[in-house]
Amino acid sequence: MTDRIFADIAPIAYEGEDSDNMLAFRHYDPGRIVLGKTMAEHLRLAVCYWHSFAWPGADIFGAGTFDRPWMPGEICTPERASLKLENAFDFFERLGAPFFCFHDVDAMATAATPEEHRRNLSDIVEQMARRMETGGMKLLWGTANLFSHPRYAAGGATSPDPEIFAWAAFQVREMLEATHRLGGANYVLWGGREGYDTILNTDLRQEMDQLGRFLNLVVEHKHKIGFPGTILIEPKPHEPTKHQYDRDTATVYGFLERYGLVDEVRVNIEANHATLAGNSFEHEIATAMALGIFGSIDINRGDPQNGWDTDQFPNDIPGLTLALLEILKGGGFTTGGFNFDAKVRRQSIDPVDLFHGHIGGIDVLARALLNAAAIIEDGRLGQFVEDRYAGWKGEFGRKALGELSLTDLSDHALQSGSDKRPASGRQEYLENLVNRFA
Amino acid sequence: MTDRIFADIAPIAYEGEDSDNMLAFRHYDPGRIVLGKTMAEHLRLAVCYWHSFAWPGADIFGAGTFDRPWMPGEICTPERASLKLENAFDFFERLGAPFFCFHDVDAMATAATPEEHRRNLSDIVEQMARRMETGGMKLLWGTANLFSHPRYAAGGATSPDPEIFAWAAFQVREMLEATHRLGGANYVLWGGREGYDTILNTDLRQEMDQLGRFLNLVVEHKHKIGFPGTILIEPKPHEPTKHQYDRDTATVYGFLERYGLVDEVRVNIEANHATLAGNSFEHEIATAMALGIFGSIDINRGDPQNGWDTDQFPNDIPGLTLALLEILKGGGFTTGGFNFDAKVRRQSIDPVDLFHGHIGGIDVLARALLNAAAIIEDGRLGQFVEDRYAGWKGEFGRKALGELSLTDLSDHALQSGSDKRPASGRQEYLENLVNRFA
Amino acid sequence: MTDRIFADIAPIAYEGEDSDNMLAFRHYDPGRIVLGKTMAEHLRLAVCYWHSFAWPGADIFGAGTFDRPWMPGEICTPERASLKLENAFDFFERLGAPFFCFHDVDAMATAATPEEHRRNLSDIVEQMARRMETGGMKLLWGTANLFSHPRYAAGGATSPDPEIFAWAAFQVREMLEATHRLGGANYVLWGGREGYDTILNTDLRQEMDQLGRFLNLVVEHKHKIGFPGTILIEPKPHEPTKHQYDRDTATVYGFLERYGLVDEVRVNIEANHATLAGNSFEHEIATAMALGIFGSIDINRGDPQNGWDTDQFPNDIPGLTLALLEILKGGGFTTGGFNFDAKVRRQSIDPVDLFHGHIGGIDVLARALLNAAAIIEDGRLGQFVEDRYAGWKGEFGRKALGELSLTDLSDHALQSGSDKRPASGRQEYLENLVNRFA
Amino acid sequence: MTDRIFADIAPIAYEGEDSDNMLAFRHYDPGRIVLGKTMAEHLRLAVCYWHSFAWPGADIFGAGTFDRPWMPGEICTPERASLKLENAFDFFERLGAPFFCFHDVDAMATAATPEEHRRNLSDIVEQMARRMETGGMKLLWGTANLFSHPRYAAGGATSPDPEIFAWAAFQVREMLEATHRLGGANYVLWGGREGYDTILNTDLRQEMDQLGRFLNLVVEHKHKIGFPGTILIEPKPHEPTKHQYDRDTATVYGFLERYGLVDEVRVNIEANHATLAGNSFEHEIATAMALGIFGSIDINRGDPQNGWDTDQFPNDIPGLTLALLEILKGGGFTTGGFNFDAKVRRQSIDPVDLFHGHIGGIDVLARALLNAAAIIEDGRLGQFVEDRYAGWKGEFGRKALGELSLTDLSDHALQSGSDKRPASGRQEYLENLVNRFA
Repeated sequence: MTDRIFADIAPIAYEGEDSDNMLAFRHYDPGRIVLGKTMAEHLRLAVCYWHSFAWPGADIFGAGTFDRPWMPGEICTPERASLKLENAFDFFERLGAPFFCFHDVDAMATAATPEEHRRNLSDIVEQMARRMETGGMKLLWGTANLFSHPRYAAGGATSPDPEIFAWAAFQVREMLEATHRLGGANYVLWGGREGYDTILNTDLRQEMDQLGRFLNLVVEHKHKIGFPGTILIEPKPHEPTKHQYDRDTATVYGFLERYGLVDEVRVNIEANHATLAGNSFEHEIATAMALGIFGSIDINRGDPQNGWDTDQFPNDIPGLTLALLEILKGGGFTTGGFNFDAKVRRQSIDPVDLFHGHIGGIDVLARALLNAAAIIEDGRLGQFVEDRYAGWKGEFGRKALGELSLTDLSDHALQSGSDKRPASGRQEYLENLVNRFA
Repeated sequence: MTDRIFADIAPIAYEGEDSDNMLAFRHYDPGRIVLGKTMAEHLRLAVCYWHSFAWPGADIFGAGTFDRPWMPGEICTPERASLKLENAFDFFERLGAPFFCFHDVDAMATAATPEEHRRNLSDIVEQMARRMETGGMKLLWGTANLFSHPRYAAGGATSPDPEIFAWAAFQVREMLEATHRLGGANYVLWGGREGYDTILNTDLRQEMDQLGRFLNLVVEHKHKIGFPGTILIEPKPHEPTKHQYDRDTATVYGFLERYGLVDEVRVNIEANHATLAGNSFEHEIATAMALGIFGSIDINRGDPQNGWDTDQFPNDIPGLTLALLEILKGGGFTTGGFNFDAKVRRQSIDPVDLFHGHIGGIDVLARALLNAAAIIEDGRLGQFVEDRYAGWKGEFGRKALGELSLTDLSDHALQSGSDKRPASGRQEYLENLVNRFA
Repeated sequence: MTDRIFADIAPIAYEGEDSDNMLAFRHYDPGRIVLGKTMAEHLRLAVCYWHSFAWPGADIFGAGTFDRPWMPGEICTPERASLKLENAFDFFERLGAPFFCFHDVDAMATAATPEEHRRNLSDIVEQMARRMETGGMKLLWGTANLFSHPRYAAGGATSPDPEIFAWAAFQVREMLEATHRLGGANYVLWGGREGYDTILNTDLRQEMDQLGRFLNLVVEHKHKIGFPGTILIEPKPHEPTKHQYDRDTATVYGFLERYGLVDEVRVNIEANHATLAGNSFEHEIATAMALGIFGSIDINRGDPQNGWDTDQFPNDIPGLTLALLEILKGGGFTTGGFNFDAKVRRQSIDPVDLFHGHIGGIDVLARALLNAAAIIEDGRLGQFVEDRYAGWKGEFGRKALGELSLTDLSDHALQSGSDKRPASGRQEYLENLVNRFA
Repeated sequence: MTDRIFADIAPIAYEGEDSDNMLAFRHYDPGRIVLGKTMAEHLRLAVCYWHSFAWPGADIFGAGTFDRPWMPGEICTPERASLKLENAFDFFERLGAPFFCFHDVDAMATAATPEEHRRNLSDIVEQMARRMETGGMKLLWGTANLFSHPRYAAGGATSPDPEIFAWAAFQVREMLEATHRLGGANYVLWGGREGYDTILNTDLRQEMDQLGRFLNLVVEHKHKIGFPGTILIEPKPHEPTKHQYDRDTATVYGFLERYGLVDEVRVNIEANHATLAGNSFEHEIATAMALGIFGSIDINRGDPQNGWDTDQFPNDIPGLTLALLEILKGGGFTTGGFNFDAKVRRQSIDPVDLFHGHIGGIDVLARALLNAAAIIEDGRLGQFVEDRYAGWKGEFGRKALGELSLTDLSDHALQSGSDKRPASGRQEYLENLVNRFA
């Protein structure tokens, strides 16, 4: 096998719906204008480094199945790191998504000490910067991996050991600065081990305070170095831990309020994490919009019959239509975007499968965007909701939310006397309306 | 059948572990001192009115199976309401739990207008007050049912119609004042329909603002009338709605922060709601304690294989031991208590089954209390946790949570150089330790 | 309100994709030929009586919200039963689905004794027969309700009391004969209480033997009376019971084998029951096809975030495309069809909402049928699967499944020596291929 | 670190309930007689090789945390295999459980070819035989790992490639013979990849036929070589696959019926797999007993809030009491036993943690056994169930299950006329009764 595994694959082009080419976009036309912006501007697509370039195709019951030239063992040498980077960018550039994302350890050579960590990260970041300059790729966000190394078995920021807290601070500082160096639009924290395996050995309040402090330190450092991007937290309810502190958007909101960060930090919502937490994906988006903390999206899907994070490429057009509708209604992304936090299945062993996964995901997002835009342009759904709450715009409604006391409202009910039934909620009608555009 | 269905059942007494009498307590000895308080003071046990006296044994696939003299049809006349009340108090007094709880419509005669509602509620409250005086029962909390009547199909406080919001205000005002009149220790709001069935017809932000306003009105009214009890919100993730806004303790915390109520309102945690939300019961308690909003408990259990609210009597002693441990560690109840929000199974049709359900539930709480107290007195579990976080009490730990910046911490990690593994979390040892006392 | 609540609604017509009429079909064109059969012949659509005409809009937390003229209370008089029937058929005929389904008690007047049950059922069946003759409706299947009456709280066929077993036999005999009288194409048994609430009071083996015997009695009676239709069992894992014996298709298959019924009985698969059992809907269909027991479909959907039987109208076109694909691959329905075992939401209180629910459901089935037919006509998906297993058609493959012993196969592996990797499973490619047609 | 990591740990002894030694049994007294057999004979305890000696403490988000001298990398050399074996037996012998279990690849050195596989397996089996002879350990069962190697990514017996089917046959033949050589009491097949990741690329019927053929080959070979043990299938619903064909006991029963194996193969029920399948553990045991296919148990527990196979050590005494009750009622184990298919948590990094995990698990099984025996000796629970079904022992009951037709039964119901309510199911009473002994 050659060392450049995508050498034979031509750049992916938009060919339209009638194309039979499975290695072309049929719906994603980057320059097409939708509701006043290009598709590319709406979607801000990103490829992640970890699933496609650092994961060997292993699962908890089986060894890696992918035979990539940069993956002969557990240790990543500087040479292999460079080879991985060249292949990753070969892929990014052929695919045509404008952004990528990475954790420090996804890209850098394995390090044994902090000094080596700093050096190896710095080396790969410089290589990355050069390749970004050549090819025009941009960084949607960077992040530090505070969950894979054994030192983080009990958490990073929430470790019972302050020395490990310091290690976490070191890794985040390096990676935040690297993200700044690379012009990243955001910096993400995913606290995969910031939770507990058993409540028996855990001081919940202490750990939450540590996490609150840590996040404040990151925000302070961001301002100190002048990083203009957004700090994002990625909610997840559990896995690998039994319980993770930032289980969903509403929980993160409460956490940010508690530690004075509600104006500084936003959420990076992952579709598969949303459903693992017992929420629909569109609910998480609508909640973040309502609470003013919507940031970015990790787009993938879980399996509705499986209770773990399967991180599959999205393929559910009607479901994504609802998600895009909430995003569009909320004003769309600012610094965020759609990052494909998705991996091809363990049996999808060929390099071309990485293209199939991403092409399919991009095309379903494009279709969902077009569907959602059509629903907005149609106007009936929005009008129905406006009409449904119209009473609150009337005189009594405005007073009811404003100056009236419980006694006033109670007296009003007594005087109006007769009973009220709600109007039909028309759920089936609205579902049919949405399906017209799906 | 006589109209007083518990006439033949003698008061339930504590008879000790060796008793073979299935209608006696074997563990609950109200006056027994545990960690400096009586069992009765620790547990503050309450019986709920709705499951045992208002529910006919129906489920979504079948009609009521209970043949109670006050339940011949859908309408409850004043006579039947009185008969129900006499039977309920016959039960309360024979059981020997000091408290009870009720919704307005559980106890009162059916009303067609607000005036009739006010009158019927007032009538039954006066009868209740007399019977409470005679028998010594106390009210743990009152609540208004804002979910059963068709008017609330789209919510009470979150209704799209301000007239229904006013109706909800009316019902809550009446019931808050009734609770005050009866010397209730708390007032609870459970928002069973304060959520949505479909996000398509829902303005999430509008509805959350309505709910925040409503709760502020209730708190204002509480202060206005001088009600000294605690206002409580009961989290639940869904059912009957697809999604309920106050899905768990952490979500409620964020909500209270958002609407300025974190010092005014606490949570009434239900075991079965905790598990439906994907949290363990002990997690919800520990979270509420850590966030300073622990209020009261609805004690019951769900079925781990069934995805709806089964509201079964608790029977899991080891699980409840962990719950009691968190309660004791957090300082126990103030105004709250353990309310048996549990119903006998639809096949448990005899009046005596209501005793079996409650006796079993009370005895498992008593055992869990004794177990948890023993774990605390043993000291090893608490010491382990203290030792595990000891680093945070040292000089570097204190500074790490205090004055050090991300750069300082990062420099510390660089200087300390060598890597750290976490110490063993000892989960299996701790589980064995706990099982010694279960 | 008039007594005929659908009087103002015109028959629903196919108007094509461009129609803006929400009370028209845009995709369901009954006479359109798809893969050699009409759409109507493929889908064999049926409306159920219970959800739309017998259910008052109640849920476990709230009273009925529907204000139908035949629903003033719990008892259904003969007059109300007739009025309900006329309205139901008004609906059926306006909708244009060719079939309907019903339980005995859905349609008949409430009965207090077996004689009255027989008489009331017979009366309504004769009214039904007349109306079927006039309007041309056909009966997809009949069934007896062995779960709503308190006598069945512990099951019908699996009751611990043989007198209740006899009652169940009586109801089934009457309804099987009524189904025969009405020319029904199938007879269904759904054992909602044929399971247990607690294993503590249950003799599992005894109950399974009762159920096996009961089903044999039904099959014998079918042959005795010359009923030409198919006997169907409807799997469900639980609800209202903790555990139901016929939890999914594979379980029913084992049951049929055990009691000698595998050639006599088939499954009626419900989408929402499939997912409650932890299986995908398409898996249940594929399994039934593979095992030779595919019968009919109860089409609806559950809510992926809710753990109970929500019985919503189907709206997921891509998911249904996979289901239709399995049905078409397996040869389609013989006596079965798609029965809408779905109810409008409790807030969808207007008569017109019943049309919206069914129209939406029918149109998504039509789209799924067209999509699945297009995938079959495209041929690539089928070819991929055939190629993937091609080795089993070769000489070694045929021998491996035929004459070779474990030793022979082992020797073959030893001789072939070198290792084999599997070929790419191409999941993402195949998902993209399917999405071309969705 | 020394190469023998358990050198400092003394054999675990029974010291009784009052012992404060966390490295002693407080309840498991092997020679104690319970219902006529020793505890050791009832429980037939086994330690598994894989979790404790082959798993490095990795999870899907993090690297191995255990620092064992035989685990320096991915390849296991013959020297490391021997060192692992010596340590494993050091552990087995100190713990005092009489049995162990292993997969071929758990114990043997890594092999690249079939010949090397045969040789390496044979070498380690001979070392094992010697150590078994010295220390008296016995093999509960052996099994071949058909899921970790990349060749099995699409399944072993159900691979689309007959060459991989042959490889699977080779591995099973070798391991079945090795099990026979070591005097194993059973041979287990767990089909972790015998299912599918996507139904799109899968021929369900073909794969089930392959699996049926494979299992028949194994049974034939067992008889050919004279292996006297039992062949067992271990059900699991999914993970690592989306769907596994042998999802639970009832499904396996149907499979065995279909392929003519119901008298030849039994089930190895795993607690955590039972709950992942949506069944309670005791349900799976009771079902296997009722169907006559109960074989052995993999004892562990899942986490009720986590949807994957956590394989934790059991600690739920009341739940296990119900399981032991079903086992005792069904007559207990014949060739099977309790295998601890459980792993210490990833943070439990010390060798002593392996003892804590197993000691806790053994003691809770001992307590559950004692509790279940006490329930049986008490007799009330058994009597209640017998009385509940007493009608079936009467004349009508016997006829109803025997000679009566549907018409006869129906006539009986008509004649008896009056209606019947079920007697109280007394669930709460029975739960209280069970809790007396827990």
